[in-house]
Amino acid sequence: MAIFARLTAMDTELTPTDDLDEVERRLAMPLLDAMVTQRAVRRVLPDPVHPRIVRRCIELALEGPTGSNGQNWEFVVVTDRELKERLQVQYRRAWSVYGTAGERLRGGDPQTAKILRSVRWQVDHFTEIPVLVVACLRGGGKLPYVPMPAIAASSHYGSIYPSVQNLLLAARAVGLGASLITLPLWSTTVARRILGLPLSVEPCCIVPLGWPRGRYGPKARKPVDAVIHLERYGARAAAD
Amino acid sequence: MAIFARLTAMDTELTPTDDLDEVERRLAMPLLDAMVTQRAVRRVLPDPVHPRIVRRCIELALEGPTGSNGQNWEFVVVTDRELKERLQVQYRRAWSVYGTAGERLRGGDPQTAKILRSVRWQVDHFTEIPVLVVACLRGGGKLPYVPMPAIAASSHYGSIYPSVQNLLLAARAVGLGASLITLPLWSTTVARRILGLPLSVEPCCIVPLGWPRGRYGPKARKPVDAVIHLERYGARAAAD
Repeated sequence: MAIFARLTAMDTELTPTDDLDEVERRLAMPLLDAMVTQRAVRRVLPDPVHPRIVRRCIELALEGPTGSNGQNWEFVVVTDRELKERLQVQYRRAWSVYGTAGERLRGGDPQTAKILRSVRWQVDHFTEIPVLVVACLRGGGKLPYVPMPAIAASSHYGSIYPSVQNLLLAARAVGLGASLITLPLWSTTVARRILGLPLSVEPCCIVPLGWPRGRYGPKARKPVDAVIHLERYGARAAAD
Repeated sequence: MAIFARLTAMDTELTPTDDLDEVERRLAMPLLDAMVTQRAVRRVLPDPVHPRIVRRCIELALEGPTGSNGQNWEFVVVTDRELKERLQVQYRRAWSVYGTAGERLRGGDPQTAKILRSVRWQVDHFTEIPVLVVACLRGGGKLPYVPMPAIAASSHYGSIYPSVQNLLLAARAVGLGASLITLPLWSTTVARRILGLPLSVEPCCIVPLGWPRGRYGPKARKPVDAVIHLERYGARAAAD
């Protein structure tokens, strides 16, 4: 089993497939490997992704927890070019503000510069990305600019992002490039209009999906002991 | 590989372990099985969980994505009885409001009644749960009751819940009981005081961890086609 895990971890170049049995085999990737090799893959091919594969990844998203088991998610799958164009306009507008700020603030750091280039590619090629999955929440009653206590907001979004992470992990196992973005939704009013969402359904984020142009490369993470606090904030674990 | 996956899916009674090699073997559970068998397990034994296992689960949490790769999570690991007592007081207060409302609204539904009983158990036995992992976010500038656009809030919590889902999936693979709760944090002011968190660090949710009293049972989910919309909200996929 250890050898199996190791081989799978190295198997970072999965080729596109339409074979649904092969998809199931890929979904049996060891959990550890899926997590460790997961990363944002923004540069994807324009080739279509079989709708059954997208459906399967969303099906696994539904296995995540929701508050009081409310199961109040909705997923809009966008492949239509005109809709993608309209979302791209929104993405470009938001990116012209945040991307410019990011370049000014942290563009000197090579790691950040790499991410910024990759997001820039995604903005410019947004209509070529074969599938956009828009993850939404029904209810929760968050109205724009109406205050709610921090924990209610946390609880609310705690019903969608565990599912989104399942979607990202499933995409990784299958070999699809995926990322988690919110900028095209900066105006929820406009996003609702584009996607035909009623006021009771809130668009939370988009996961663009496509077969990767490159491979799932390495990623950098802080050491775990830098973020663990024992009993109270600031108390570090003793090395053992 | 398919047979391997099937065997692991049936293996829903994992015994407590302190053996870190065994933990690594369990973390190689097929992704699909971990997702499909994941569920809230609230009734846990008071027996301690090896700190290295908790650390390993948090290490895998860090593999999740964060906005602009900010890696702005912090995890407070609480095992101290006095701190658990103080969090229990908060949990009980919030539960007396929300739990009572829940019982009145949906207590007639057997599925909901089961969840309510299980949460009630967790409230009453909160100090016996061996480990509470408090997932926090640094920065983000959310001040209590200060409005922010919906998508900024979504983006903010989108940097913690993917990690929390990794933590839950890792716990499931290892055989630990885990759940995702926010009620003990209903007052972030009090929670900050208990955990020694500065104003710049926001407690988002708690994952209680312990070896299960029972087993990972089945869970109910809506059919995927009930939550998928094609291109625009309300357009259902044709059966194929």
